[in-house]
Amino acid sequence: MDAIKWNGDSVTLLDQRLLPLKEVYNTYTNYSDIAAAITNMETRGAPAIGIAAGMGIALAAQGIGTGDIVKFRDEMSRIFGIFAATRPTAVNLFWTIDRMKKITHELTDVKQLKETLKKEAVRIHEEDIAANRQMGKNGSRFLNDGDIVMTHCNAGALATGGYGTALGVIRAAVEEGKKIEVFACETRPYLQGARLTTWELYRDNIPVTLITDNMSGHFMKTGVIKKIIVGADRIARNGDTANKIGTYTHSVLAKEHGIPFLVAAPMSTLDPDTATGNDIVIEQRSTDEVAFVQNVQIAPEGIKILNPSFDVTPAANISAIITEKGIIEKPEGRGIMGLF
Amino acid sequence: MDAIKWNGDSVTLLDQRLLPLKEVYNTYTNYSDIAAAITNMETRGAPAIGIAAGMGIALAAQGIGTGDIVKFRDEMSRIFGIFAATRPTAVNLFWTIDRMKKITHELTDVKQLKETLKKEAVRIHEEDIAANRQMGKNGSRFLNDGDIVMTHCNAGALATGGYGTALGVIRAAVEEGKKIEVFACETRPYLQGARLTTWELYRDNIPVTLITDNMSGHFMKTGVIKKIIVGADRIARNGDTANKIGTYTHSVLAKEHGIPFLVAAPMSTLDPDTATGNDIVIEQRSTDEVAFVQNVQIAPEGIKILNPSFDVTPAANISAIITEKGIIEKPEGRGIMGLF
Repeated sequence: MDAIKWNGDSVTLLDQRLLPLKEVYNTYTNYSDIAAAITNMETRGAPAIGIAAGMGIALAAQGIGTGDIVKFRDEMSRIFGIFAATRPTAVNLFWTIDRMKKITHELTDVKQLKETLKKEAVRIHEEDIAANRQMGKNGSRFLNDGDIVMTHCNAGALATGGYGTALGVIRAAVEEGKKIEVFACETRPYLQGARLTTWELYRDNIPVTLITDNMSGHFMKTGVIKKIIVGADRIARNGDTANKIGTYTHSVLAKEHGIPFLVAAPMSTLDPDTATGNDIVIEQRSTDEVAFVQNVQIAPEGIKILNPSFDVTPAANISAIITEKGIIEKPEGRGIMGLF
Repeated sequence: MDAIKWNGDSVTLLDQRLLPLKEVYNTYTNYSDIAAAITNMETRGAPAIGIAAGMGIALAAQGIGTGDIVKFRDEMSRIFGIFAATRPTAVNLFWTIDRMKKITHELTDVKQLKETLKKEAVRIHEEDIAANRQMGKNGSRFLNDGDIVMTHCNAGALATGGYGTALGVIRAAVEEGKKIEVFACETRPYLQGARLTTWELYRDNIPVTLITDNMSGHFMKTGVIKKIIVGADRIARNGDTANKIGTYTHSVLAKEHGIPFLVAAPMSTLDPDTATGNDIVIEQRSTDEVAFVQNVQIAPEGIKILNPSFDVTPAANISAIITEKGIIEKPEGRGIMGLF
């Protein structure tokens, strides 16, 4: 299963909207289809968004007809704008765009530029997988044999280049021979937990139990859940972490019950330019995601609905931030700059 | 809109499973259909379950052919058993059964008994509405003009004889001229908030905003939610309160943010015979309620799913318990016996 695949002149994406019932792969040759696939969540997860955007940008570059570097850069600038507008919260997206921008500004030969952008897209993908594996090695010591570990949303192979951030740490612990059981919160409204996390863990023979988001407190209070591990969409300089809506709630419950609350994220998710969680833009998505579950309408017409896609967990509620470069334990008051 | 109506020789129930899209009323003449309607959640909410059970038992009594009191009592005993098995957590159910049992054991004339059981069923319904209104009057002082009040599940007209417990307190505050806006948590898995609370408040022109359960922490942290009010399915002697799964999570978040957490329930929900929350039986419902939203499957086959229908909020997390007989502020260490 490759959720994102670079074919040299096209990109193949697993349509995550159709999981877990259908496993459909779409191959795109047009960059605007890839931008649309990010916006409409055919592909999702901060690292995967960054990877897909890199491939989309590389593909776009191939399609530019001019050999004139000024005109080429103008066109690339427009393309960067299109990708920047797809999902505002995932910092990996902007990190990818910055890497591609840098190349576009440094090189002057259009042909060489196109080749280099392609290679960079592939490199971003490969680096992500390597980072995930290293993150797994770094973080697995937090999980003990026999632990039931709760996770929220999908920070797995589907959300990344292939191994996972939060689920990568779980995979690494399992590979070390530890018996780990996962409680997956379903993650309303988009149900990434119910649809994706359960699907990929089941495929990997890692025992997984699905619960609704509002059961997490109950299973912490009753002593079932021993650890919590989640991914991140953006980590501010002070350690405040934006992640899928509901993460903050779980972090407060973890604090109440003395349960370790771990965040696993690649360095590309750490954002030294954002001072605190208050400075993170929270994407507001369509209210139809709440009012409908696929084609089933669950709320009456006419009422008001809110759909913030993320929330911010303060550094104070985080036990450790796990990255491929190292770990920051108790980030409160310390922030993330020690890793740079 | 009468969610439960006694017709003398039949009972009409609003099929709450079809809301908010369809408003369908079913009329039942057979008691076993009413027991099934409780089990399958055509009617739901602890007070409404008690009322429907009372009517079902009264109807069952009418259908017993014998004039022999011993045989009549034997048959009634079997019927009490059927209703007791419908939903284990709602104490109102057992409170109703006890009232009907008492009559069955006190009177000896079968004809008179049948009449008295009918009258008792109607009285249980009328008392519930009166209790809701009094609860509203008692509790409205906790809500201020301009408040945004969050609620979970449906503790409204649909869950009771007609006015509501938690939503009754909100209705009373609105009737006093206070401007109140309600945030309704959708309440997975059965979506009582999305389907029922929004529906009945919208009909009453009380402004209502739907959010997913996992957004509650975010909207408390960002200062949007000023009060929380919920109903209850059983309140133990020490004040520990069983209510719809997710309630405990909201209570921990309320404590974290210094937000008043109110429980509104009739005296019939207070259970002096249950010492603490640890003694409350938590109903485990079908995992299909989690795996499917109506006909839409949202989780892969083969995975494990848990579906506890309730959780227990400790008295320590409750700011006040509002009943028709009075209010217990800060029930921790004090319990509920002051109201008996």
